[in-house]
Amino acid sequence: MGIRHLIDFSNIDVARWNELVKLTNEIIDSPQDFASACKGKVLATLFYEPSTRTKFSFQTAMLRLGGSYIGFDNAENSSVSKGETLRDTIKIVNNYADIIAMRHPYEGAAYAATLYSSTPVINAGDGGHMHPTQTLADLTTMMREKGTLEGLKIGICGDLKYGRTVHSLLKAMSLFKNNKFYLISTESLSTPKYIIDEIVKSGNSYVECDSLDKYIDEFDCLYMTRIQQERFASEEEYLAQKGIFVLDEAKMKKARKDLIIMHPLPKIDEITDEVDFDPRALYFKQAKYGMYARMALIKTLLSEDFELPERPVPSNLNNVFCSNHKCITRLEPNLPAQFGGEEGARFCKYCDFEAIEWR
Amino acid sequence: MGIRHLIDFSNIDVARWNELVKLTNEIIDSPQDFASACKGKVLATLFYEPSTRTKFSFQTAMLRLGGSYIGFDNAENSSVSKGETLRDTIKIVNNYADIIAMRHPYEGAAYAATLYSSTPVINAGDGGHMHPTQTLADLTTMMREKGTLEGLKIGICGDLKYGRTVHSLLKAMSLFKNNKFYLISTESLSTPKYIIDEIVKSGNSYVECDSLDKYIDEFDCLYMTRIQQERFASEEEYLAQKGIFVLDEAKMKKARKDLIIMHPLPKIDEITDEVDFDPRALYFKQAKYGMYARMALIKTLLSEDFELPERPVPSNLNNVFCSNHKCITRLEPNLPAQFGGEEGARFCKYCDFEAIEWR
Amino acid sequence: MGIRHLIDFSNIDVARWNELVKLTNEIIDSPQDFASACKGKVLATLFYEPSTRTKFSFQTAMLRLGGSYIGFDNAENSSVSKGETLRDTIKIVNNYADIIAMRHPYEGAAYAATLYSSTPVINAGDGGHMHPTQTLADLTTMMREKGTLEGLKIGICGDLKYGRTVHSLLKAMSLFKNNKFYLISTESLSTPKYIIDEIVKSGNSYVECDSLDKYIDEFDCLYMTRIQQERFASEEEYLAQKGIFVLDEAKMKKARKDLIIMHPLPKIDEITDEVDFDPRALYFKQAKYGMYARMALIKTLLSEDFELPERPVPSNLNNVFCSNHKCITRLEPNLPAQFGGEEGARFCKYCDFEAIEWR
Repeated sequence: MGIRHLIDFSNIDVARWNELVKLTNEIIDSPQDFASACKGKVLATLFYEPSTRTKFSFQTAMLRLGGSYIGFDNAENSSVSKGETLRDTIKIVNNYADIIAMRHPYEGAAYAATLYSSTPVINAGDGGHMHPTQTLADLTTMMREKGTLEGLKIGICGDLKYGRTVHSLLKAMSLFKNNKFYLISTESLSTPKYIIDEIVKSGNSYVECDSLDKYIDEFDCLYMTRIQQERFASEEEYLAQKGIFVLDEAKMKKARKDLIIMHPLPKIDEITDEVDFDPRALYFKQAKYGMYARMALIKTLLSEDFELPERPVPSNLNNVFCSNHKCITRLEPNLPAQFGGEEGARFCKYCDFEAIEWR
Repeated sequence: MGIRHLIDFSNIDVARWNELVKLTNEIIDSPQDFASACKGKVLATLFYEPSTRTKFSFQTAMLRLGGSYIGFDNAENSSVSKGETLRDTIKIVNNYADIIAMRHPYEGAAYAATLYSSTPVINAGDGGHMHPTQTLADLTTMMREKGTLEGLKIGICGDLKYGRTVHSLLKAMSLFKNNKFYLISTESLSTPKYIIDEIVKSGNSYVECDSLDKYIDEFDCLYMTRIQQERFASEEEYLAQKGIFVLDEAKMKKARKDLIIMHPLPKIDEITDEVDFDPRALYFKQAKYGMYARMALIKTLLSEDFELPERPVPSNLNNVFCSNHKCITRLEPNLPAQFGGEEGARFCKYCDFEAIEWR
Repeated sequence: MGIRHLIDFSNIDVARWNELVKLTNEIIDSPQDFASACKGKVLATLFYEPSTRTKFSFQTAMLRLGGSYIGFDNAENSSVSKGETLRDTIKIVNNYADIIAMRHPYEGAAYAATLYSSTPVINAGDGGHMHPTQTLADLTTMMREKGTLEGLKIGICGDLKYGRTVHSLLKAMSLFKNNKFYLISTESLSTPKYIIDEIVKSGNSYVECDSLDKYIDEFDCLYMTRIQQERFASEEEYLAQKGIFVLDEAKMKKARKDLIIMHPLPKIDEITDEVDFDPRALYFKQAKYGMYARMALIKTLLSEDFELPERPVPSNLNNVFCSNHKCITRLEPNLPAQFGGEEGARFCKYCDFEAIEWR
């Protein structure tokens, strides 16, 4: 069986990933062969919070496959403002569109959509949780530019605590072997323990440090990220931290000639203007790879046979609920609570947060 | 001569309706035969107030006919905010689009558009007045699911006073024979007299009652509607009324096995979660029928030859004006006042409200 | 070499203009021959301020060439609200779209975009500076309706001081010979000196007057414009001026039978309702000509080979900067300052304002 949806990477193993990479490469090498691949198909871009870049990437991907799109990018202009549930919105949009790309400020929203959707759902970002097509863009970039996803030395710099693109990247790269991650951040924005655990479990290695300079001469890839002001407790803390990890010409001089610099974009001031003109700056090309990866993903998902899912069954646990106040189950009380995990620990299937129990 | 516009049902007789139904059925049965039916044609969706669902339905209908769309869904982002009249907007859009679907908060706006439009206009909702393509969706659903539009027992529940979809449905079903309507509402939200008069005149029958339970075992179709908070005088009144006519499992147990439940959507809490999973719940499928009906409508209107209308002539009545403060003639003073009706009574041709006379 | 971008008319000479006119005429005469001319191509409409009419015109032009579009019409729903520079936005959109049409409230924004764009950029309005595709519409209208762009007597009425469409029109028409311009405005809204200078330099002639009546019997073309309230210092000043230059039936009686009335639209009350129904009122047809002219422009720009521009070099002038506080270089400090002009005078290459020097 193939892939139904793309919500996180839990249902993507190396074999499936390799198929996606292969198709992406075919599209990059001769896009004209795919210009009618999804003719007559309609993509719905449901953006409950704005993200022009991601929306453009999906829409263009669909157009370049010969399909078309409908969508909204502002929940206030939609039926949502009339009190409609996510479930109803999805069941309606199922009638119009053949595939859905969805961004939502609440975590687990895309997973929630899959419970009721008779068409494939692509997670285009659910709060601070996951943004898997950004990761597709990242891996495609490394694969095309480095020729492999194994044995790489990858610097990752910025907000490693809250940055969902970083978390997704580390999880995805842990599927591959012999990579070494240099986790560069201040202490207060360092990588969460569960991500470190996954790296260790996968047999890859890592170093944590608080300097972009220190190991820059070793990197095959440097993944820069933005520090989002809204993640900080105060403006003071933001101002104190934000300037520390800026990539500039001085640092670039120490770096290898075959380094590739990546960034999920948009960037603000974490990379100086000059660096944009350095041939090692790959982040704009990375965005184009993202479009090709989305083309491959859309084509793959639309190739599968697809039926309405069974009615979802709630986990039958008394007094247990998700501890995450930004979980979609808090916003939409009609969603069935679902928990998974091994004995003793329980995690929300929507947002991966720990469950808590009322006593 | 065929249909130029679809504003209300005054220009749709049973023969034309049957043609539309026939075409809708052909499209449902083999949509691929119509995938290029409107190739090269452009639909303009002019949504002066947001309605994601209706907009999606029109846009998808056009896409699935091989056409494309332009549009706005927020008058504030349009030239309207620069003081442009509806007339000018229509005359401009005529240059770009081959057909217009228009939603407007003022009553009679779609009719006003037809006075100046050299392309077909579809009323996608004008204030509380008409929403004829919703009615197309409703009738298509009953035709497909019940095989007939005659001899049906139809429960209609909710806000029957202000609900424009209910008014349109009752007017349209009055074209057919031997139907019985069960009008279920509180007294303060009961069906207006002019609608009751039309039912009586048509030879169909009706019962009014204030309980959803009472006749539920008799219905072929149950049409549920939302009670819009904004229709109530106070929040207290809203809270007191809104819960009374909820469709739940207990009531469903009394209903017939071949009942179909319909709803114009979006719904809020007038139907319980459980009922969504009952196979008799047809409202999501109804939305899909709506898309097919819009495809048939768009194709039909685009098949007609069409010329710029003559300059509209105002009714020459001194000191007479429309009594409806939400009539489009109030918002757009350059529209020619037009009144119709038999001796003694005069009705605004835009919004169907009674005219009043200054003395 | 052909045209790369359309920013103002500085790179359009009479020969290129004639090619555009020729292609526009071919499209008007048999649009079906061009229905697949841009198949597979994607237009991005980047509207940093709303303009439904212009956006519709570009989008429809692209659709009628067989292409498709992506876009935003509200910068607040875009990545711009996250602090992204115009440069980054353009470099990203380059990955998705084959051609860009851009409107921006800051002057020089479209020129700024061309510095970094690997795809053609069309200026769809940059503040009060330029709106060249409106001028294409205007010239196409005169060419089609009058058969020539030479030897015309052209009345231009309204806000001649701030009206960018008027400035563009006068500059473009100065490329042609033996035209006479009647510049009709109040003294406080009269034509800027640099425009008058261009008319004189071109060998065409002009008259300034403060009455729409005076020469109306001489005009081949009358170009009416809106007086934008936001251009006035106070509401009082606005109310005092706005009614003075209204075109009404009385004035139309004095005008020639073969006059054509033009207007960039939207209009408010500078033309009375009655005049709309006069066959000499060409402004709605003018909008349609605008769509055809944009089709010709898009097709022309997409036919050129195109490479990423060299890195732009700043004018190396100490302490010199643009005097215009609405210049894009004020909003985007990373743009390289560029000045041109002969000895002694220096003008900003973005917005054409004079440079000033700090001492």
